[in-house]
Amino acid sequence: MTASPKSDRSRLKRSHHRGAYDREALHGVLDAGILCHIGYGIDGQPYVTPTFYWREGDMLYWHGSSASRMLRASKGHQVCFNVALLDGFVLARSGFHSSVNYRSATLFGEAEFVAEPAEKRRQLDLFVDGLWPGRTNEIRPITDQELKATTVLSMRIDEGSAKIRSGPPIDDEEDYALPVWAGVVPVRQVAGDPIPDPRLAPGTPVPEHIRSFIAARYPD
Amino acid sequence: MTASPKSDRSRLKRSHHRGAYDREALHGVLDAGILCHIGYGIDGQPYVTPTFYWREGDMLYWHGSSASRMLRASKGHQVCFNVALLDGFVLARSGFHSSVNYRSATLFGEAEFVAEPAEKRRQLDLFVDGLWPGRTNEIRPITDQELKATTVLSMRIDEGSAKIRSGPPIDDEEDYALPVWAGVVPVRQVAGDPIPDPRLAPGTPVPEHIRSFIAARYPD
Repeated sequence: MTASPKSDRSRLKRSHHRGAYDREALHGVLDAGILCHIGYGIDGQPYVTPTFYWREGDMLYWHGSSASRMLRASKGHQVCFNVALLDGFVLARSGFHSSVNYRSATLFGEAEFVAEPAEKRRQLDLFVDGLWPGRTNEIRPITDQELKATTVLSMRIDEGSAKIRSGPPIDDEEDYALPVWAGVVPVRQVAGDPIPDPRLAPGTPVPEHIRSFIAARYPD
Repeated sequence: MTASPKSDRSRLKRSHHRGAYDREALHGVLDAGILCHIGYGIDGQPYVTPTFYWREGDMLYWHGSSASRMLRASKGHQVCFNVALLDGFVLARSGFHSSVNYRSATLFGEAEFVAEPAEKRRQLDLFVDGLWPGRTNEIRPITDQELKATTVLSMRIDEGSAKIRSGPPIDDEEDYALPVWAGVVPVRQVAGDPIPDPRLAPGTPVPEHIRSFIAARYPD
């Protein structure tokens, strides 16, 4: 991505003040999210599928079963990627000016197949270790059969934009005098205490990488 | 929606055990979410846009600026709706069997324009009061001009499915002996304390509908 979007499809038509074209803002939103939605089409029918993603440099990656319709249909085709993070409800003195605080990133591009097995393996490890640093050293490594059953797709981050809203409501000037509560109800994702698998050997400690994950992704 | 999907596009190709076709499960997921993603196409280019939605009976509604490209492009066209709620990270003893706990609903249909002004107004009030019961009695009502500037779309809930995963990891039998922590890291959305608008008249109490909203949507 350059400092501006390349084509009409990623130009923000409205709310220009909420658009953030710079790479740093875009990466900030991408790195804060975990779950994205991929939009794609099959014979003119739109589909949208939620999935997990990760970033390495200027590339985004996602994965799934090689049998997945979504992955097969998006491979080599134009897709639209969105991640949306809800930060709060903005209650104005009118419904019209009520809004939400959010961070959202939308990208357009062609989904490419990561074909080379070693690179596929490396990317899947990056996904796991990106969430739980070092976990791939502890778990059973992926088998060749599992690797075949897994498809990894990538998309270059070169066309897209971030939209961010924060702060209090912006009401019509004459509405500020109304005797109605206005403000923001902030929301955020939090993690609970890890729940051990019922079949876990008693006394197995919760590893540091899970504490790191919670501290990094779900800080109090 | 009948008890089974109508066409190929909504048939679950994989993870059949995770599909829940019944209306109750589908409504349960729809009513738990607030933010959805709408997939649509313009000249063969897929788009996906996050937006808010509400349900009345067998209809889903969403809204936005009448100038919105998404709303104009989806009106009268086939769209794909998804809401995905992340409930936890499922850490198995292999990357391959690691997963997430989630509730997701995908619907297909034609997006219809809610044209009649009184019905549009009623739906927008339903949206506000559905989140904050009674708030429309307190805020400044929508003006005719604002109503014109707002587009409301609807889609009948008659083709779609819910997918739900819950519970601990399911590992390969031989992996259970590995000395690695496995289990679930639950996540959920929570609301923080309401933040009054800096321009709010001092002493304006937080209304009961905001307490209800937090208790209903973001219980501790």
